[in-house]
Amino acid sequence: MYSVDFVSQHRLYDGILYFIRHDSAATTTPMSATVFVPDVAEQRSDAPFPALYWLSGLTCTANNFTEKAGAYRKASELGLIIVAPDTSPRGELVANDPASDLGQGAGFYVDALQSPWKAHYQMETYVTRDLIEAIEANFPAAPGKRGIFGHSMGGHGALTLAMNHAHLYRSVSAFAPISSPMHAPWGEKSLSNYLGHDRSAWERYDASVLLGKGMGKAFDDILIDQGLQDPFLESQLKTELLEQAAATAGQKLTVRYRDGYDHSYYFIQSFIDDHIAFHAQRLK
Amino acid sequence: MYSVDFVSQHRLYDGILYFIRHDSAATTTPMSATVFVPDVAEQRSDAPFPALYWLSGLTCTANNFTEKAGAYRKASELGLIIVAPDTSPRGELVANDPASDLGQGAGFYVDALQSPWKAHYQMETYVTRDLIEAIEANFPAAPGKRGIFGHSMGGHGALTLAMNHAHLYRSVSAFAPISSPMHAPWGEKSLSNYLGHDRSAWERYDASVLLGKGMGKAFDDILIDQGLQDPFLESQLKTELLEQAAATAGQKLTVRYRDGYDHSYYFIQSFIDDHIAFHAQRLK
Repeated sequence: MYSVDFVSQHRLYDGILYFIRHDSAATTTPMSATVFVPDVAEQRSDAPFPALYWLSGLTCTANNFTEKAGAYRKASELGLIIVAPDTSPRGELVANDPASDLGQGAGFYVDALQSPWKAHYQMETYVTRDLIEAIEANFPAAPGKRGIFGHSMGGHGALTLAMNHAHLYRSVSAFAPISSPMHAPWGEKSLSNYLGHDRSAWERYDASVLLGKGMGKAFDDILIDQGLQDPFLESQLKTELLEQAAATAGQKLTVRYRDGYDHSYYFIQSFIDDHIAFHAQRLK
Repeated sequence: MYSVDFVSQHRLYDGILYFIRHDSAATTTPMSATVFVPDVAEQRSDAPFPALYWLSGLTCTANNFTEKAGAYRKASELGLIIVAPDTSPRGELVANDPASDLGQGAGFYVDALQSPWKAHYQMETYVTRDLIEAIEANFPAAPGKRGIFGHSMGGHGALTLAMNHAHLYRSVSAFAPISSPMHAPWGEKSLSNYLGHDRSAWERYDASVLLGKGMGKAFDDILIDQGLQDPFLESQLKTELLEQAAATAGQKLTVRYRDGYDHSYYFIQSFIDDHIAFHAQRLK
């Protein structure tokens, strides 16, 4: 039932990187993802391994992370599977918008309620149900050992999906997340299109709202890295709202502001090893 | 005189990655490159640092290596500058060919002798003179501490430039080099176009010929990594000709065949740390 097509594969760092496609019942489209499996996991498929899910940012496919994040060396060393899905359904029949912050490449990890988006933009259910089912049916990934992390829109996705589905994930971290999409132009545009103008429906997709309600309690710590030269920090990311919410809820949140670093994958690759180690510690 | 334009920069791994452009007298065009400078080199600019030059393969700009090789973590750790130039002159006024193995993106690191190529395709002189001058005038790179390495066409470039200009470089290595372009379809096409049909003029751009003549003697060892699942190994790369030439000349050559690995940057990133350490050992 949860079959995947193996599109291509590359050997790297004593492991295999698979490019896959699989049908999603949620999006009713084929979805693309990459999966890195270290040899040690293949060899011990009787003892399934932790899997770390990466959610990417606006305009990305799975390939940005896969090619640029430099994540697999550490994942191989620590024996982690890493899964990177696409950021939206795609195709000629899927609604789109010419802007980079709505439509294909900008699914925002929500289940859309409004036409024309609701037909395929069901990314919350895709990531938390269909993707997990496809991975765990086809790779040696352990159901009880999932972590989730991401960047920018994907950092928002990691935080909100982890808090709304805390039974699915044991660890969560983010790079430069959109910390409160209700208070950021990118988020307001996407959420109003996908969910409609009733802002109360947006709250379950706002990491700062969820954190302030104590919904991060399942996680002993949440790790955030944020570049101080990130051009989106003040206008779109608003990390301080996440810090305020954590303080309100008594949630442990470790925010590391990095002087000189920006919003790019050069920033991400500089600290990816730390994040992988943070998850490995909680998943093994 | 050797000024460079700083197009953009990103902080990564406790260093700075600069995207630069500078005029080359050899190509008579602006040339693009990236330069990674670890903080430790900036801070000690009175004691210039080793610089490692990377030459890329067919179709590449400087960006493929810069984004995908995962080289800068180790370079930062070991205190090496890494310079990655473009693979050819570019622009509307520069001769081109629609094929991926001739013209823009395929300079083959030769000084062309034939029209229309000779007007701008002077990549040997660009890399060994103009690029070095621009880098050493603008970055804390030590003249006596240069290494050179590359991939595929760039592996050919690294080997042949190192042997023809052994006074300029202290160390050389390659990933999946075109080991004998005189005996490979890519090389025969490019060399006949750039140099003409007299094959005796090609010999100085054939790493196996040079190595067989003992021109590698300045180097205590030459390191090669080669994937065994590389689809170009038999038809284009012919690593065995390099091994035969090394045996003939009594040259130490370390060729590591890697089971399962292909021709991609996933292969390169898996072993880039070893190559950087190999150069650092010889440059420091």
